Amino acid sequence: MTKPSIPQGTRDFTAITIYKRNYILNTIRTVFELYGFEPLETPAMENLETLMGKYGEEGDKLIFKILNNGLNDSKNISKAKEGFDKLMEGKNTPQLTERALKYDLTIPFARYVAMNANMLTMPYKRYQMQPVWRADRPQRGRYREFTQCDADIVGSTSLINEVELSNIYHRVFVLLGLKNYELKVNSRKVLAALAQIAGGEQKMIDITVAIDKLDKIGLEKVKIELTERGLNENNISIIEKYLNINGSNEDKIEAIETLFAQSEIGRAGIEELKYLMANTSNVNLSIDLTLARGLNYYTGIIFEAKAPAEVKMGSIGGGGRYDNLTGLFGVPNIAGVGVSFGIDRIYDVMEEMNLFPENIANTTKVIFFNLGQNEVKIALQLMNTLRDNNIACELYPENVKLEKQFKYADKKGILYAIIIGTKELETKNCMVKNLKNGIQQEVAFDDLTVFINNK
Amino acid sequence: MTKPSIPQGTRDFTAITIYKRNYILNTIRTVFELYGFEPLETPAMENLETLMGKYGEEGDKLIFKILNNGLNDSKNISKAKEGFDKLMEGKNTPQLTERALKYDLTIPFARYVAMNANMLTMPYKRYQMQPVWRADRPQRGRYREFTQCDADIVGSTSLINEVELSNIYHRVFVLLGLKNYELKVNSRKVLAALAQIAGGEQKMIDITVAIDKLDKIGLEKVKIELTERGLNENNISIIEKYLNINGSNEDKIEAIETLFAQSEIGRAGIEELKYLMANTSNVNLSIDLTLARGLNYYTGIIFEAKAPAEVKMGSIGGGGRYDNLTGLFGVPNIAGVGVSFGIDRIYDVMEEMNLFPENIANTTKVIFFNLGQNEVKIALQLMNTLRDNNIACELYPENVKLEKQFKYADKKGILYAIIIGTKELETKNCMVKNLKNGIQQEVAFDDLTVFINNK
Repeated sequence: MTKPSIPQGTRDFTAITIYKRNYILNTIRTVFELYGFEPLETPAMENLETLMGKYGEEGDKLIFKILNNGLNDSKNISKAKEGFDKLMEGKNTPQLTERALKYDLTIPFARYVAMNANMLTMPYKRYQMQPVWRADRPQRGRYREFTQCDADIVGSTSLINEVELSNIYHRVFVLLGLKNYELKVNSRKVLAALAQIAGGEQKMIDITVAIDKLDKIGLEKVKIELTERGLNENNISIIEKYLNINGSNEDKIEAIETLFAQSEIGRAGIEELKYLMANTSNVNLSIDLTLARGLNYYTGIIFEAKAPAEVKMGSIGGGGRYDNLTGLFGVPNIAGVGVSFGIDRIYDVMEEMNLFPENIANTTKVIFFNLGQNEVKIALQLMNTLRDNNIACELYPENVKLEKQFKYADKKGILYAIIIGTKELETKNCMVKNLKNGIQQEVAFDDLTVFINNK
Repeated sequence: MTKPSIPQGTRDFTAITIYKRNYILNTIRTVFELYGFEPLETPAMENLETLMGKYGEEGDKLIFKILNNGLNDSKNISKAKEGFDKLMEGKNTPQLTERALKYDLTIPFARYVAMNANMLTMPYKRYQMQPVWRADRPQRGRYREFTQCDADIVGSTSLINEVELSNIYHRVFVLLGLKNYELKVNSRKVLAALAQIAGGEQKMIDITVAIDKLDKIGLEKVKIELTERGLNENNISIIEKYLNINGSNEDKIEAIETLFAQSEIGRAGIEELKYLMANTSNVNLSIDLTLARGLNYYTGIIFEAKAPAEVKMGSIGGGGRYDNLTGLFGVPNIAGVGVSFGIDRIYDVMEEMNLFPENIANTTKVIFFNLGQNEVKIALQLMNTLRDNNIACELYPENVKLEKQFKYADKKGILYAIIIGTKELETKNCMVKNLKNGIQQEVAFDDLTVFINNK
């Protein structure tokens, strides 16, 4: 006999949590579709070789690999042993494991686009809302199974896409009640220009990886890391000057226009930021020159969405432009740009700010109490009519003490209890009790739908 | 460089398929909630020991096991080797694999109920719609990842639950347009009574396993299998007589009332069937005495839903009553009854019968053609207003030849194209072209929402 338990870092979602999560997901889905994005769903598992090597060394270690089936069939044993030996050497082993759980939505999307590039209508705008799995050490707010929520446009280099994705962030956050969100933007081209004047282009990754930690570790430690990464004092002083640029968006633009006047890529990055500023009217955009985004496939505008400052939650979304995502799968020259929403974080923010609508649960509205088989027959008929009118109802299945039935209705948060006794059977009336305010009322069977609907 | 491919037996779902699948899932979800069921979601992975031994020997082999992470860390290597040796002996090995992908929704549900029995409001009515994974050999209509869709009531032995589940089948199938579905019912108690008079109660499983194959292999082969399973000629002749009972539901009840007059469990099973007949008015119930359902945990009423006879698709759902599901996890005496919908089959049936609504896709309704930056600015403003009014629209991101933009609109099935040229910018009118009928009309910017909404 197994004592039941759930795997570490995973969760059962019960009704109220699901209703709240779906409220977020449905809001985002509606907005994605308002902007012309269409859904895509990829399988939970991908071939291992699709995933390996795409997330860096640390990421690879966090991929959940699936054991091949039938390994101990006599015909497979020697292959399995070979595979196991390779595994022990830290190598990929299709002999032992051919498949793995997806680690994000981006690589499966790239795999899909590469497989179907010829038949897709470009630009292809897709959204995807699915769970992903990572063998991270579980901790508060970090799970081994969590939902990602992405929208990407591939096959277009136009900055209109960045504008539209910014508009999507705005519309989603406003609909969810997070009006004071902040959408931080920067351009990887601006960071490339910084590298040009502070250590050389080949130092770009070193600089961005260090800068990316600014929020977490502070300027002094970033400077130490930059030193360790081989930048000299002069380089670091330029970077520090850059990181200290502040003021309004316009001030920042002005400062980097001076700083990168000689850099072609710098001017291109500045043009991107200016285009975005000029073409988004409502979005709470703020240029954050320290924004770097860890992922090295970004090449243009990068985004990070922050929760309203009153909750200390940090990032609730992010994204950016990439130039050659499907190149990994042999299909070059498909550029794209995408954004992602952090569902778990948004959930926590909305919970803390008390933003979920009050009647979010589709709970039963009406319960018929069970007083015996004659009443049951009538209840079943009345329920059929209520349901035809989209009123959720149920009949307590056991003929037990009313007290127990009331308790059930109370725990489930049901609004109306209906009692049909011997007298009511004769008069074709039922007693409707509002369980919130205790008021009872006699209602004719035929008027029940109207009564419930008008309340 | 990896040539992209998708794991055998899994599928990418693209937009139109997702809209159709969601049409089915949302219909079922709505009905479940109308009947007072609440949602539950369990993780994709369960602890291996939760799943092993629950699906029979064959089932166990089809469970996808997840390799533990960090097996080649020096501290884990000896444990991993031990685990691998056990695996080669065909044993469960937490040293190598602690987790597995869920194989169905029933065992995770039982695990959830067992873990939370004290805090659940009984009877607990939950529905669950999630993917499950099986390492079956892929073939037409059989996938390694597929969605199950279950509703169960636990903590109640009342037959009202069976009545309500029958009503759910009826309402879902009618809403989906499958009016001529057939809901076959039987009782495992009737089959137990058959065993009593044809070989003894200890032969119950042998008899049901053989009978369960009647549809597939025919009566003669069932008789051979019964012989092989140790039943004698006399037993088999009784079983044959039973299997040949036909006529209306009433005829069948009458026949088994005679046949099982002496059997207490037989009479109990007949009462169940009669109660179900008497309390369901609209449901297309048909008693099928040959219905057995392979799973041995069923103890009372069993269901099998069949697609309308005009499509040769067979089963589109099934379920039944079980007495002690959570006993496996140390929590005894929680009885339940549940039903399941076969989403992939229902999808195929609806496709074949042409039952999906025509405008099922939430495609973009309006596209703004891109004629340059001045037009883009106006388009972005107009789109903002359209979206405020829930009209899905997009702007072609590149300023390319109109022919290419028309082609994109056509492929995406967009209804209206809006052209704003230099002239239109001045007059604050735009040209709206209906791409289905080719009709063009000039519409003032301010009237656009009303125009689109009234069309």
